[in-house]
Amino acid sequence: MAIDAPGKVYLCGIDAAIDVVGGKWKALILWALGTRPTRFSELRREVEGISEKVLIQQLKELERDGIVHREVHEKVPPKVVYSLTPLGESLNIALAPLGDWGDAHLDHITTVRNATAICK
Amino acid sequence: MAIDAPGKVYLCGIDAAIDVVGGKWKALILWALGTRPTRFSELRREVEGISEKVLIQQLKELERDGIVHREVHEKVPPKVVYSLTPLGESLNIALAPLGDWGDAHLDHITTVRNATAICK
Repeated sequence: MAIDAPGKVYLCGIDAAIDVVGGKWKALILWALGTRPTRFSELRREVEGISEKVLIQQLKELERDGIVHREVHEKVPPKVVYSLTPLGESLNIALAPLGDWGDAHLDHITTVRNATAICK
Repeated sequence: MAIDAPGKVYLCGIDAAIDVVGGKWKALILWALGTRPTRFSELRREVEGISEKVLIQQLKELERDGIVHREVHEKVPPKVVYSLTPLGESLNIALAPLGDWGDAHLDHITTVRNATAICK
């Protein structure tokens, strides 16, 4: 792709940030990785409902964006561990107030959206 | 839709919050409304690149979620003004650190995404 023909234009920082972390899964993946470096299989258990294919795709995008670090430990069988980069950690911190807002208003949101909350 | 067959399940607050504010446009609409109550035509100018149809749809969803208030002033021609509800204001405050993160890392994000930033 030519640099002078980008496919995307950001209007400002919040636009770019939502592009990095938006969608159904990425904030949840960051949340899970925020507690500790995590193996793929553990991550899949913690982010309930995500398929293997989608988790692989989301992790690839987060790795490309410099948010997630992927490390292969040469064992038999090889062990692949995902963790947050410093940039990912700063993103997680920036997301915390939004998470708090969601927690505080979860009843309201689930009611208007006719959704179910299964928070742990 | 039956209450006992919801289409959506939230894993936690951040999941619900991202569902309310995710996507390309909503945070930008909130940002614009955060400065002052705004008429539709002004809002469309401020959220650069959004189509009339998409702006109408996004505002309807934000109104349904209790984030945006729509007020019709009975004039000739009628004047429709959008503003943030108290819930919308609290969401805007919760989004601010994410906006700051995006501002701080805009160069990085635009580079890895091969995007363009046109921040005002």
